[in-house]
Amino acid sequence: MNYPSGIKKKNVKDINYGNRGMSLESDINISNEYYLMNDIAIIHKKPTPIRVCKVDYPSRLDAVIKEAYYKVPSTTDYNGIYKGKYLDFEAKETKNKTAFPLSNIHTHQIKHLESIVKHGGIGFIIVSFTTISKIYLLKAEDLINFINTNSRKSIPIKYFEENAYLLKYKINPRIDYLKAIDIMYRGEF
Amino acid sequence: MNYPSGIKKKNVKDINYGNRGMSLESDINISNEYYLMNDIAIIHKKPTPIRVCKVDYPSRLDAVIKEAYYKVPSTTDYNGIYKGKYLDFEAKETKNKTAFPLSNIHTHQIKHLESIVKHGGIGFIIVSFTTISKIYLLKAEDLINFINTNSRKSIPIKYFEENAYLLKYKINPRIDYLKAIDIMYRGEF
Repeated sequence: MNYPSGIKKKNVKDINYGNRGMSLESDINISNEYYLMNDIAIIHKKPTPIRVCKVDYPSRLDAVIKEAYYKVPSTTDYNGIYKGKYLDFEAKETKNKTAFPLSNIHTHQIKHLESIVKHGGIGFIIVSFTTISKIYLLKAEDLINFINTNSRKSIPIKYFEENAYLLKYKINPRIDYLKAIDIMYRGEF
Repeated sequence: MNYPSGIKKKNVKDINYGNRGMSLESDINISNEYYLMNDIAIIHKKPTPIRVCKVDYPSRLDAVIKEAYYKVPSTTDYNGIYKGKYLDFEAKETKNKTAFPLSNIHTHQIKHLESIVKHGGIGFIIVSFTTISKIYLLKAEDLINFINTNSRKSIPIKYFEENAYLLKYKINPRIDYLKAIDIMYRGEF
């Protein structure tokens, strides 16, 4: 960008922090920090799985990894504990305006969420439709129900409007998805 | 190895599976697979956190990581769900014969386990004394109780003998630590 002389760049960063949010991952991580600091829930993002092939030093403290590859994750990205309950979810962004392509989630991640629910945990996905600035929380039960009753390879936004919880941006926590959990599972725990 | 002619290698693998076990991490991972396959519990080891500095290709699928460093983990290594309960633990090996040095566990990992218990989850550590071939499961409550009432920098083996559960090797699951959980938390869930 070309700035007219005399105008400083210092507010540029603020402009990025509007209602549109940063990446969904950052927003969720910041919300999790808020939950942790305020002793509301303990939810962490799992580290990205990486297959390390070459390391330069034998001691782990000094080690420099020289060759490594990203692995396909075997579970979802986030899990933790809230009100004594096990909680597990995946967060995804899509630029698509009308539907969420199921190719965005690995089959084994869907199976994982299904097992979590079966074992008495709370499973869900958070989907951010970035182009239309809408973020939904969809229960794993409803995600699986859609897959089992449809041959479509994407979930239309209408299904989210009818079955998911619309998450709004706040100051703190940035995305209060646990409030959605309270509402969607009312009376269940 | 040199095999006399006519004798096949097929039993060599069995010999490695004695009572001594492989590394504690492998043994726990194999046990977790057993729990998963038999629909008993869903417990995974978190990937090792790695800070990636240099990647060769922009696409994640083709990416080769060229410079990366190990990070200090912010939580424990394992978590998951068992009988609807959130479960969280750290596994450590020590060559020490008489005590478990507390320097083996990061302070924030202990704080993490303390929070888990406070939030209604099950937290514990599994300690393998490799030299004397004993593996103990110690509840987070007892770990924290020791730290709060002692100035010692290691937990003597006597404390494990009196407060922890001695885990024995089995065929399947290799280390049946959930059986220990059933016994130690009897009536609580």
